[in-house]
Amino acid sequence: MIKLFYAVNTCSLASHIALEEAGATYTTVRLSFANNEQRGSEYLAINPKGRVPAMVTDRGILTETPAMLAYIAQSFPEARLAPLDDPFAFAQVQAFNSYLCSTVHVAHAHRMRGERWADDPAAIAAMQRKVPQSVGACFELIERDTLKGTWVMGEGYRSVTLICSPWRGGSRATAST
Amino acid sequence: MIKLFYAVNTCSLASHIALEEAGATYTTVRLSFANNEQRGSEYLAINPKGRVPAMVTDRGILTETPAMLAYIAQSFPEARLAPLDDPFAFAQVQAFNSYLCSTVHVAHAHRMRGERWADDPAAIAAMQRKVPQSVGACFELIERDTLKGTWVMGEGYRSVTLICSPWRGGSRATAST
Repeated sequence: MIKLFYAVNTCSLASHIALEEAGATYTTVRLSFANNEQRGSEYLAINPKGRVPAMVTDRGILTETPAMLAYIAQSFPEARLAPLDDPFAFAQVQAFNSYLCSTVHVAHAHRMRGERWADDPAAIAAMQRKVPQSVGACFELIERDTLKGTWVMGEGYRSVTLICSPWRGGSRATAST
Repeated sequence: MIKLFYAVNTCSLASHIALEEAGATYTTVRLSFANNEQRGSEYLAINPKGRVPAMVTDRGILTETPAMLAYIAQSFPEARLAPLDDPFAFAQVQAFNSYLCSTVHVAHAHRMRGERWADDPAAIAAMQRKVPQSVGACFELIERDTLKGTWVMGEGYRSVTLICSPWRGGSRATAST
C-alpha cells in the first residue's frame, strides 16, 4: 500500500494527482508546514530532506517528484500516464518535470524560502524582489517552447498537465506525468 | 546520430560519461562559457534555456540531465546503465539525479550564478557566503542517507557514480545513470 506524505499548496500535489489518475490504492498523511512538521523528527525519519512529497511503498521510500511520477506511471501502465514504450517521448516528459523542479520551482522558492541560500535579511528581500522576473521568464519559456497545443505532450497524454492559476501576479505550475 | 552540446566544468559531464559508458556513437559541440556562447542566438535556437547540456537526436532535442540520462540508459539497454525493468530501483536512480539537479546543483549555483535570483551585488555576495553551508549539508545527507556502499545503487550499477573532488572547501558531484 502506498502512503503519500504531502502538504497543501506544495508541489506534492503533482504526485497526489498522479496517484488519483493512476487509480492507485493509497493513503495520505498531511503535514502542516505552519507547525513545521516537515522538520520534525518523526517525518525526518521518513524523509531526511525535510521536504514533501515522500511516498512509502512496499519496497521502500521514494522522494523527488520526477522520480515519484515516473514510478507511478510505470507501476500503473494501464493508466497510460506517460509514454512508457518510447524513450524519447518519456524523456520529454522527464525533461519538463525536471525543468519545473530544478528551475521553475527553485525560482519560485526564492519568494518564501530564501533562507536556504542566504542569511542576511536584506539579501532575502532582494531575492523576493526578483521572483516575478525569474518566474515570469520561466513561464514565458514554457508557453513559447514546451507546449503542444494546450498540453505538454499533446492530446495523447493530457495528464501531463500544466496548471496555471492566478497567483500574486504570477502563475503556479504543477505537472503530473 | 546524437550530438551533445557541453561545456567544461559543468554538469554536462554526466551525460557525456553516460554516452561513453553506453557505447553510443555521438559527436560533441563544446561551448565556451567564457565567451557566453550558451547565450548566443545560434545555441539558443538549440536550447532556448541557454544552459548545457543539450542533446540533438534523430527525434529532436533533449535537455535536462535526468531526462537525458534516462534516455541514454533506455536507448542502450545492453549497456545496463540503469535498472530499466524495476520501476522502484529506476525511481531511486531518478530520485538521486533529481536531488542533484534540484537541490545540490542549485545550492552550488549560488556561488557563481547568483544573478539568476537577485540583482543587488550585496545580496549576491551574501548568497556566496552561504554556499559552503548549503552544499555541505547536501553532501552530508548524500553520504549519510543515499549511498549503498561506495555507489548510489550498490555494486550492481556502478555507473551511478558520485564523483567528489576537493573544491574550494566543498565538493563537486556528478551522477550518471
